[in-house]
Amino acid sequence: MNPPLTWSIDHIGLAVTNLDEAIATYAGLAHTSVTLRERLEKHGVEIAFISTGGSKIELLSTLDPKNSLSRFLQNRGPGLHHIAYTVSNIKDELSRLSKLGVTLIDATPRPGAAGTSIAFLHPSSFCGVLTELVEYPTP
Amino acid sequence: MNPPLTWSIDHIGLAVTNLDEAIATYAGLAHTSVTLRERLEKHGVEIAFISTGGSKIELLSTLDPKNSLSRFLQNRGPGLHHIAYTVSNIKDELSRLSKLGVTLIDATPRPGAAGTSIAFLHPSSFCGVLTELVEYPTP
Repeated sequence: MNPPLTWSIDHIGLAVTNLDEAIATYAGLAHTSVTLRERLEKHGVEIAFISTGGSKIELLSTLDPKNSLSRFLQNRGPGLHHIAYTVSNIKDELSRLSKLGVTLIDATPRPGAAGTSIAFLHPSSFCGVLTELVEYPTP
Repeated sequence: MNPPLTWSIDHIGLAVTNLDEAIATYAGLAHTSVTLRERLEKHGVEIAFISTGGSKIELLSTLDPKNSLSRFLQNRGPGLHHIAYTVSNIKDELSRLSKLGVTLIDATPRPGAAGTSIAFLHPSSFCGVLTELVEYPTP
């Protein structure tokens, strides 16, 4: 049996109040550029990925004043929101984590940006960090 | 003149209440291992870097109940703390950012882990994200 693979960071999610302003801020200060921008109407968010040399940053803005991102912004203000890791088989990982007692926010994967499958895991299992798994579609 | 270089994410900092427990949590769930552990007595923190495939995670625990990390843990609990970017010349970047109106927490670089020079920038300039610059020593 092969040893388990270390999770690889895919991106860091930042909650922002204004997507255009956040894109301009990071472009001006950190020389980043947008690689993908997408409205995920079903989840009530508009996101933009910005390139940062290595891992990516996902800027998240809300389209729905009642969703969890809006609650986050109201309670904590803009800032660091989650870490996402790439895994090769998201269903297998959710099954393994569930058996270890991790609280799953998404018990089954759901569609993410750019054709990915994603699932969120509760911060209580990860030292207070909202954690996301991402599986990319097979090329 | 060359175009400005995009900042590259060096690591994501997580504030934790117990360093040994956090290391064990991430090892068990995300298959990470420790690459560096260091007590920075002057700053009142003990840190551990864990490998995550691409970018690194820095787990930060406090040694001083009165420092800013302790205040962060008391006010917000454990969780995401900062993003650090590698830059090639930290002094030049601090000078450029200062002219752009960014609030510098460290006006001049100070020693970080593993021989690096580091400086923190105020969250107000980065969409609520405490931001760190890191310059590695010349090999």
